[in-house]
Amino acid sequence: MRLRFTKMHGLGNDFVMIDAISQKVTITPERARKLADRHFGVGCDQVLVVESPDNPDADFRYRIFNNDGSEVENCGNGARCFAVFVRQRQLTAKSDIVVETAAGLLRLHVLDDNQVTVNMGVPVLAPAQIPFVTPHEQPEYPLQLDNMEITISAVSMGNPHAVTLVDNLASFPVKTLGAQIETHAQFPNRVNAGFMELISRQEVKLRVFERGVGETLACGTGACAAVVSGIVRGLLDTTVAVHLPGGSLSITWEGAEKPVMMTGPAKAVFHGQVKL
Amino acid sequence: MRLRFTKMHGLGNDFVMIDAISQKVTITPERARKLADRHFGVGCDQVLVVESPDNPDADFRYRIFNNDGSEVENCGNGARCFAVFVRQRQLTAKSDIVVETAAGLLRLHVLDDNQVTVNMGVPVLAPAQIPFVTPHEQPEYPLQLDNMEITISAVSMGNPHAVTLVDNLASFPVKTLGAQIETHAQFPNRVNAGFMELISRQEVKLRVFERGVGETLACGTGACAAVVSGIVRGLLDTTVAVHLPGGSLSITWEGAEKPVMMTGPAKAVFHGQVKL
Repeated sequence: MRLRFTKMHGLGNDFVMIDAISQKVTITPERARKLADRHFGVGCDQVLVVESPDNPDADFRYRIFNNDGSEVENCGNGARCFAVFVRQRQLTAKSDIVVETAAGLLRLHVLDDNQVTVNMGVPVLAPAQIPFVTPHEQPEYPLQLDNMEITISAVSMGNPHAVTLVDNLASFPVKTLGAQIETHAQFPNRVNAGFMELISRQEVKLRVFERGVGETLACGTGACAAVVSGIVRGLLDTTVAVHLPGGSLSITWEGAEKPVMMTGPAKAVFHGQVKL
Repeated sequence: MRLRFTKMHGLGNDFVMIDAISQKVTITPERARKLADRHFGVGCDQVLVVESPDNPDADFRYRIFNNDGSEVENCGNGARCFAVFVRQRQLTAKSDIVVETAAGLLRLHVLDDNQVTVNMGVPVLAPAQIPFVTPHEQPEYPLQLDNMEITISAVSMGNPHAVTLVDNLASFPVKTLGAQIETHAQFPNRVNAGFMELISRQEVKLRVFERGVGETLACGTGACAAVVSGIVRGLLDTTVAVHLPGGSLSITWEGAEKPVMMTGPAKAVFHGQVKL
């Protein structure tokens, strides 16, 4: 069969988007792996499949496959692409969209110019729930690496993050120290390592070394965790522009028990047809 | 404007193919770079643009852009994709196609099942023309690396190649030794480093560390150079199957002054439309 798809990206994190509502198609892990192959297939970080929901409170359901065929729970960049995709494909005209994901219901709001706001949930700072092995919760913790001690904040956005403040992000050895932090014994499930340079109380630069992946162009949960860590440290205001290598996000957090709201772009690059 | 394109690959070396005959379009280096970007564009190793020829002896002309926007002279994998593309797009029904490239006229023959034979030209063994700094031409030369001496053959297929025989290709340190050979002082223009394991007189395995690139899935000129070096050494017959990481090529060389004929596959993966 011929499968219609749209290639999209959110800050360079790229997706093959498949409308499985108006076309009858089943995406298996093996098909996702083939579609995602950059030399022999279409090529993408992840394949996102839009389906009809089971849950009556949701407008849609989506599933996300990594390029190795494994299924992931959720992804902020993918959520933004999803919202723009279902409107461009005229599957909905709503600007407030509820979508069922493997991580639960997600609420999205589409603004003008294909910016999308995603409710990323309430951040978790309690060490045991991150999980981070330490005697008690603090805004900052010392962390001993191979040749130096650094200072981190620890935040879970559904996945664990360690955030370090740095002076010169462009020249910072993200790969070397990221790998040491990722596999540090105090993070039993490993951790995503974020490195943040402050520009003002409303603006930061961020690079993230993602768990199991390495440095990426734009990590949505990493941006949320970084801003939460800056607010907990008393260094940032409620709404902060986060400049990542792939582009910029706006993150808002009003404090304890409140969800983190992430706003950013999603862009359709091309439409194609591929034989499955 | 909306640009129609086809994504193809030859043994995993992948191309965005553009028909600039039936659509009016100018591909600049900047546009090629954007199209080739794997996260923000369509994504490919190279962009191949098919145009009408200036030379009355040719059926077509093509230009190939690298993903950094620079233009390259020629590419065996691209030539095979070109031949299948112009037939699938019904720009020609011929099975013998003459095409004008930056490296001169190229003669292609399309077989059944989208296999294409490319005349890759006469190999050059004279050291000064490769260029390789050595007193006189031999089938093999010793080459001193950092911690060991290896034995190479030196062949030019328009670009320089050093070919080394190895016993266990799968575990061979291609990256480490490839980088040392590539930049060896006896190759003033640097060199592509091929590592060949013999299976029989008609079959070899090959990995190539390409000059300025690193190890690739399938180097067409590398396969030609490897077979020529094996024939010159008296180890291979006239026609040899070469198994590369991306797939297999059949290489034929009838000896001195004769051109090397390369036969291999080309495959269309998907068709798309992108806004320029």
